[in-house]
Amino acid sequence: MAKITKLIIQKKVLSKNDEIAANIRERLAKQKILALNLVSSPGSGKTSLLEKTLAEMGRDMRLAVIVGDVQTENDAARLRKAGGKRVEAITTDGACHLDAAMVEKALAKMNIADADVLFIENVGNLVCPSSYDLGEDMKVVLMSTAEGDDKPLKYPAMFRRSSVLVINKTDLLGQSDFDIEHAEKNARNINPDLRIFRMSCRTGEGLPEWYAWLKETSGSKKNS
Amino acid sequence: MAKITKLIIQKKVLSKNDEIAANIRERLAKQKILALNLVSSPGSGKTSLLEKTLAEMGRDMRLAVIVGDVQTENDAARLRKAGGKRVEAITTDGACHLDAAMVEKALAKMNIADADVLFIENVGNLVCPSSYDLGEDMKVVLMSTAEGDDKPLKYPAMFRRSSVLVINKTDLLGQSDFDIEHAEKNARNINPDLRIFRMSCRTGEGLPEWYAWLKETSGSKKNS
Repeated sequence: MAKITKLIIQKKVLSKNDEIAANIRERLAKQKILALNLVSSPGSGKTSLLEKTLAEMGRDMRLAVIVGDVQTENDAARLRKAGGKRVEAITTDGACHLDAAMVEKALAKMNIADADVLFIENVGNLVCPSSYDLGEDMKVVLMSTAEGDDKPLKYPAMFRRSSVLVINKTDLLGQSDFDIEHAEKNARNINPDLRIFRMSCRTGEGLPEWYAWLKETSGSKKNS
Repeated sequence: MAKITKLIIQKKVLSKNDEIAANIRERLAKQKILALNLVSSPGSGKTSLLEKTLAEMGRDMRLAVIVGDVQTENDAARLRKAGGKRVEAITTDGACHLDAAMVEKALAKMNIADADVLFIENVGNLVCPSSYDLGEDMKVVLMSTAEGDDKPLKYPAMFRRSSVLVINKTDLLGQSDFDIEHAEKNARNINPDLRIFRMSCRTGEGLPEWYAWLKETSGSKKNS
């Protein structure tokens, strides 16, 4: 009984979320801002990727970031230190994901009218954030070579709903049983359309390709 | 409105969960079985730690495992291959945590009356499983040196509700900015009573201490 009521309420919450997300998407479409929702386990390197991107691409492009965390604003502080000029923190206070209402509230505090890209760094969690549309153009899922190469099979929803996969920490390859070919094969079994980047935020491998993709994808949105 | 109803339902679900968990705890107390709930991000090494433990301690002790995953029974297969004789898999089919009802159902299929230890490997998620009591004696939280050393601050509920912290993958120390002293300090700030193990399931560092602790803690339960 409680279970059925719970499901009905969940459905209502999700449909309300989708409504707000649709508004955000419409607004960002008008402003021609590319919105990327970064999702992963805790510690896969979402913040590191954004640090590098802000430092390297912040000169050429106008980049805004909304950064979600269960507690602390550590990540927001790191991103400001890396050169982020428009960084808004959301502390979910225990909640396991960002939702569209949180993003809407954060956007109201930001001046992003002329931004090229809005990054939304989600809470570190490979399950729950997959269910919440935030109005983004696409989800970018990260996994690191220090995790298992079967993660796409074990957390399929997140990989199915993402458009881009970043396999981070390639500098650690060979130090564990992680097989990158196997990881990519598993990911493509779940989602054949994934654009995959092999990356090391530490050594810089794969970052030029990521920057080029970002520029091109933002350009397509500007011309849409 | 929907939010308030959602909170009431969540509270009901949690209180029903706590009731089932209390029954499980009572049963395991009578059987003098030590129950450990292993929690962590995906890829921190819960399954690796259990593989090692089953292979090394499975001769001396009777070990049972309930292993939860969002999809696949990959982990259960790994544990059986490592020598696990009583391994029961729970596939949550999308749910982001195990709950007590799932554990109760799994226990009904297992013969564990004479077991010394029951391990429950939770879904890889550093947020949601912290709210669900499974009837365990204690939670064992893992983090790996490939994650950030600020994880205890960013996911405090899990570290506060755990009795043991395993810092895994010490073989990768020095290859990232992870500072193990800092990680331990962060963890103790959240929970001063944490028993901490530094470990590498790859090199074996810290495993003897873990085995000794397991034997001693199981012994205490037997004599309780």
